[in-house]
Amino acid sequence: MTKKILVTNDDGVMSPGLLALVKEMRVFGDVFIMAPDRNWSGGGHVKTLDRALRVREFRLEDGTQAFASDGAPSDCVSLAVLGYFKEKFDLVVSGINFGANLGHDVTYSGTVTAAMEAVIADLPGVAFSLELPEGHVGPLDFSASAYAAHIVIQNVLEHGLLPEILLNVNIPYLKKEEIKGFRVTRQGLRVYHSRLDERVDPRNRPYYWIGGDAPTGVPETGTDVGALSEGFISVSPLQLDLTAYRALSEINTWEWEDASEN
Amino acid sequence: MTKKILVTNDDGVMSPGLLALVKEMRVFGDVFIMAPDRNWSGGGHVKTLDRALRVREFRLEDGTQAFASDGAPSDCVSLAVLGYFKEKFDLVVSGINFGANLGHDVTYSGTVTAAMEAVIADLPGVAFSLELPEGHVGPLDFSASAYAAHIVIQNVLEHGLLPEILLNVNIPYLKKEEIKGFRVTRQGLRVYHSRLDERVDPRNRPYYWIGGDAPTGVPETGTDVGALSEGFISVSPLQLDLTAYRALSEINTWEWEDASEN
Repeated sequence: MTKKILVTNDDGVMSPGLLALVKEMRVFGDVFIMAPDRNWSGGGHVKTLDRALRVREFRLEDGTQAFASDGAPSDCVSLAVLGYFKEKFDLVVSGINFGANLGHDVTYSGTVTAAMEAVIADLPGVAFSLELPEGHVGPLDFSASAYAAHIVIQNVLEHGLLPEILLNVNIPYLKKEEIKGFRVTRQGLRVYHSRLDERVDPRNRPYYWIGGDAPTGVPETGTDVGALSEGFISVSPLQLDLTAYRALSEINTWEWEDASEN
Repeated sequence: MTKKILVTNDDGVMSPGLLALVKEMRVFGDVFIMAPDRNWSGGGHVKTLDRALRVREFRLEDGTQAFASDGAPSDCVSLAVLGYFKEKFDLVVSGINFGANLGHDVTYSGTVTAAMEAVIADLPGVAFSLELPEGHVGPLDFSASAYAAHIVIQNVLEHGLLPEILLNVNIPYLKKEEIKGFRVTRQGLRVYHSRLDERVDPRNRPYYWIGGDAPTGVPETGTDVGALSEGFISVSPLQLDLTAYRALSEINTWEWEDASEN
């Protein structure tokens, strides 16, 4: 049976990264597209409940029918799986994002949180992000990313994903033939270099940019950051259970006064 | 030495839940307030990089000086810890939220993601949320929440939190004397009942609400949902490492074609 695949992203429906992913997904089944009408990078895991959402039809560069919503990437997934398309989906993929989503990026990332939303809807979700070379200008080469998407989705369709698990895939910015292969990794450590940049507007009122250098990472072997730095495609299984199990027993020994005895 | 405590929330600076938390935190040290100027519920873990942020001074109902920003709760934490106050904080607390943040709510929740932002900035972060009785109208009783905040923060200041760990505290909507005590819990399962509600505007164009009944939960013992349903205050240690470690070895056995051999 043909698979029904939902494609979304967080850079917006116009992104060439979305088109690259759509083209690769067509190999596996029928593709439906619901993506934000603007960039939502760093937008987090959003559930828009206080306003209604609009959806409009859109055509990708190659003429493919797509739908653009004014919601976040996770809202796009909700719209699609709750019935906009009147289809039962088999898979949700998100990307290909401009810029890696490594370490602590995952809860900020619209690309990754769209895949989280898929998992909450009981569907396999996979996020794809391409490392952006610093200072890069001009069109990006998505051939390594398309290759990564092909191998990963082939595996997901063959083996399935455990419930509650999504995949966060990051691709180094290398030519396809330079890629060393795949590494199944754990989430590594991002190092943010944020700095507050205070400026004054023409009316003499202050405003504040969250500025500073781009985040770096600790390139430890076995992590997503490490895999990319060594030229591998990183595949990290993530879960939505954030419980810090290792902390439970210690916190249990704290003084938890019994309120009923007060 | 007096502790410096940052208080934020996701319901907005005007929320009586914020004031209730501020009052309780004064017992432990100097309180600084940076909160959103509007409601950000369900707003996710946001990092606002594409626009500047504004901050304006505000007075809480009791005259306390506060600051309101047009960013998300996590942006408020960034503004505060990156230098708006020129203070080194010892602790970041968020809440008291109108409505529990249980199970999968945690990545959506502005209250919880503010505490995540604290952890990313290497500070202990604690989120407090009060269960909302369905259909409740009128002022809320924060006395049980204030009690919970007191006991939890006393413990956090005495024992510290492991790096990378935040606490997600949920309080049942009961009178203080009805509370059965505390339970250290794992993240439970939320059950969402979202439904797409298509409507037509006066100009005959469709728009879409993410509607449906309020989420429920699986009240399993040992979980946050279970603790609340049994009348306990729930304290869940959460971590920012989302790696699904139990899935690593199986995914490692998938066919990861070596790209260099192609």
